[in-house]
Amino acid sequence: MITRVDEQRKTWTAALVVIGDEILSGRTQDKNISQVATWLNGQGIRLAEVRVVPDDIARIGEAVNALRSRHDYLFTTGGIGPTHDDITVDAIAAAFGVPVIVHPEARKILEDYYRDRELPLTEARLRMARTPDGAELIANPYSGAPGIKLDNVYIMAGVPSITASMLEGLSGKLEGGRPMVSVTVGARAAESEVADLLRETEEAHPGVAIGSYPFFRDGRYGANFVIRSEDGDLARETGSDLAERLKAAGFDPVEGGI
Amino acid sequence: MITRVDEQRKTWTAALVVIGDEILSGRTQDKNISQVATWLNGQGIRLAEVRVVPDDIARIGEAVNALRSRHDYLFTTGGIGPTHDDITVDAIAAAFGVPVIVHPEARKILEDYYRDRELPLTEARLRMARTPDGAELIANPYSGAPGIKLDNVYIMAGVPSITASMLEGLSGKLEGGRPMVSVTVGARAAESEVADLLRETEEAHPGVAIGSYPFFRDGRYGANFVIRSEDGDLARETGSDLAERLKAAGFDPVEGGI
Repeated sequence: MITRVDEQRKTWTAALVVIGDEILSGRTQDKNISQVATWLNGQGIRLAEVRVVPDDIARIGEAVNALRSRHDYLFTTGGIGPTHDDITVDAIAAAFGVPVIVHPEARKILEDYYRDRELPLTEARLRMARTPDGAELIANPYSGAPGIKLDNVYIMAGVPSITASMLEGLSGKLEGGRPMVSVTVGARAAESEVADLLRETEEAHPGVAIGSYPFFRDGRYGANFVIRSEDGDLARETGSDLAERLKAAGFDPVEGGI
Repeated sequence: MITRVDEQRKTWTAALVVIGDEILSGRTQDKNISQVATWLNGQGIRLAEVRVVPDDIARIGEAVNALRSRHDYLFTTGGIGPTHDDITVDAIAAAFGVPVIVHPEARKILEDYYRDRELPLTEARLRMARTPDGAELIANPYSGAPGIKLDNVYIMAGVPSITASMLEGLSGKLEGGRPMVSVTVGARAAESEVADLLRETEEAHPGVAIGSYPFFRDGRYGANFVIRSEDGDLARETGSDLAERLKAAGFDPVEGGI
């Protein structure tokens, strides 16, 4: 019976490798970490670790191999377009020790996509049909060229709107556990004034984690306190308890956050 | 003489560990990766790798120890406030195998800061004076509580405006090399139409890397091509060459990007 309970309570985890010189140079503000994190949570999977690596075969391979065995799922974003700096497929094939092939289904998708648009399927565009041998495809209704699934690795586009389209297609298809429930309570308190109260509240409710996120807005200090648990009732009970403790300490708690 | 040339051309690198459950849960959009990357570039230091890890002593320590020996500098952001979930100092002290102390200078800074504001220096606030033994402080004009330097590790706040204030204080103080120069050329071309041209341009100018960043805007496809090199003249020459090649291929290049 213990086993059964443990199985029910398995925490599913994922890692993300963000691939791209443009993120590391500061030119581009990454939007995929929060997008993938939020989507994963909806699937009952927790994003446990992220690495950002340059457009470099060895560095991509090292990150992929370090993370794919540690987590139930590994996602990558970036580097699957038609240009010379798009080397993610080559890097992941090398990391798995398999050759790169032109995937017949992916080729068909691109042929149809460019035919409909009266554009030629050039050598560069055909690059987007290359996958590691043994891969399956992830649909991309937004711009044709598919994402790629190899074992537990999900290779996605880097342009956030295309990533979103691929995630949408994967929704409900990955096995996960219970989504993490978040309850937010805000107060116009400097976090240093309520640090003890927060710690005591967390200790009084085993199974929750409370994060404190301070801000300075409209000339006043404040903070949002985020209670997280896979047990929604426990998260909500803890939120009510925290609000009462804040009120008793002379602060005006704002349920849902400020 | 070879040695001398190599020394002049040393590429200084840094890694960044972003610490916080709020980034991995998707609640907070990280802004420190691009901020730290941009600032480092101005110092002639290249951001080579980023890891995002949860508020967990072991996971923080693992990332810090993996990266601090690989790079000239390691930065961390997050987890140095006054609340129970702020455990970065403990994690990094443990990673170095040194005790945590109350740093006398940091204590003085906090005493002055809170005295000026007629607020008590509570136990929670005093947490922000804790450092690994042997650390120096990084000034924080914005909100008092200092950042921490231990060996080649720079421990910074997570709130982006406070991180910015600490970076400002460090400007010009870290040894670096030449800043990476970026030249951008844009065109209303689908990147798959110019993939060959881009690859050929990169090959014709050893020492540059050209990145291609597509967009779809106002109903039209386009892309910006970013040429990067530590040699500014080489980057600019390559930019002019790329613009000429794009013009010859029938596209209207936009220097500086679209």
